[in-house]
Amino acid sequence: MDKFVEYIECISFEENEQTKSVIPVPKEKDIKIFVNGYELVSILCTPYKIKNLVVGFLYSEGILSHLEDIESFELKQNDSIADIKLKGKFEKPLKKTLTSGFGKGTMFRSDGKKVSKGGYISPVKINSLVKQFENKMELYRISGAVHATALGDSDTVLLVAEDIGRHNTFDKIQGECLMKGIDTKGKIILTTGRISSEMLLKASRMGIAVAGSMKSPTGNSVLLAKEFGITLIGHANGSKFVVYTHKYRFSDFAGD
Amino acid sequence: MDKFVEYIECISFEENEQTKSVIPVPKEKDIKIFVNGYELVSILCTPYKIKNLVVGFLYSEGILSHLEDIESFELKQNDSIADIKLKGKFEKPLKKTLTSGFGKGTMFRSDGKKVSKGGYISPVKINSLVKQFENKMELYRISGAVHATALGDSDTVLLVAEDIGRHNTFDKIQGECLMKGIDTKGKIILTTGRISSEMLLKASRMGIAVAGSMKSPTGNSVLLAKEFGITLIGHANGSKFVVYTHKYRFSDFAGD
Repeated sequence: MDKFVEYIECISFEENEQTKSVIPVPKEKDIKIFVNGYELVSILCTPYKIKNLVVGFLYSEGILSHLEDIESFELKQNDSIADIKLKGKFEKPLKKTLTSGFGKGTMFRSDGKKVSKGGYISPVKINSLVKQFENKMELYRISGAVHATALGDSDTVLLVAEDIGRHNTFDKIQGECLMKGIDTKGKIILTTGRISSEMLLKASRMGIAVAGSMKSPTGNSVLLAKEFGITLIGHANGSKFVVYTHKYRFSDFAGD
Repeated sequence: MDKFVEYIECISFEENEQTKSVIPVPKEKDIKIFVNGYELVSILCTPYKIKNLVVGFLYSEGILSHLEDIESFELKQNDSIADIKLKGKFEKPLKKTLTSGFGKGTMFRSDGKKVSKGGYISPVKINSLVKQFENKMELYRISGAVHATALGDSDTVLLVAEDIGRHNTFDKIQGECLMKGIDTKGKIILTTGRISSEMLLKASRMGIAVAGSMKSPTGNSVLLAKEFGITLIGHANGSKFVVYTHKYRFSDFAGD
């Protein structure tokens, strides 16, 4: 299993203690599925048991009915392409029935934007923001089973959005900021959900300086946070948290 | 917030105690987004702050750059359609850049299948399966931040799949069963992730009798489980769980 994990050097903040540690995060990979030469879909996944995933997906979506429908199955280009030839004719799915689900992975762009330097903040403030955030979750308190995301400056949680879809909470924050004229640049975003690469890209487009989650990030989101200049935080619980990238924003680490 | 929640009558099993209770689960709704008359995408979401969500999504996807790009915004048909007219021309996104994300919501079908009656099981066995499942998670133990799903019969966990994507774990199980010739009909599926309506539909196509999660289901998955004859379980932790639908499979409730 170890090869599906990346080990990231990071710093854990707990009370006034800072500890260097190496934390494993799961790898993620984008796999393009071609059926009879037609690019059907890309799936972001853990690159383990890829053939099971692709065959199961095609079966579940009704594109194949039996294993015997497959003429050939090939993983190409370092497992980034699954190339399937079916014995029979392949009917392209109707565009209109494409739906995007909870994760709302359907995206029409996958670019990010480098965020500005600055936005220094003390570790204590992160803990305070996490506690404020927890107090402002409403739907979660009633029903659980939803995600929540907060936007804040270094002192105060400004907005909270809740939704069954992780990505939706980011879009709800983005929409509310546009409509209320709140500038998201240099702000802090905190979320109950894992920060996937797609969420990291959304944060970068908002110009977010610090993106924090109560959960672990994925390998790709660590890479993207590095590239786009975002301070990425995980495992935040109001009294401690782990910093994966751009630690310089924590004043004690200025110049890091 | 209460109107974004459904209250479901269910039974909690803890040791040998059974308690009737009413548990809130979050509502979910499918919202179709039309831009200048073109059906862009459907988003499954919590139907609260819908305008924020849609505006934020369109902005994040680069379809609008300013709030002023919007000529009109209308929610129609009981909020199931968001109809946006842009002032400028709308360029349809290129099909090729469609990706499906962690949730892998992209689906080409949304039909389910009624599963067969039968598949009685004692509550004690569910707890035992959950414990077996927990012992068989590998990637989760190393890195956290992934989902795991197990397929079992009433005694034993047969297969486990792990992935950063909730839906991917179901597809990996489905694929492995196809390739190993394991019949999924009447089997039990357990997952660390929330069972959304899309996952419930996948389970129904597999003929799963009992679908259990460590988390809460959503309102729609309860409805679909009722319709498709699946016993839906939530909040399972190895010593207790909650049953939302088709309780008759628990022998004590035969005939329920």
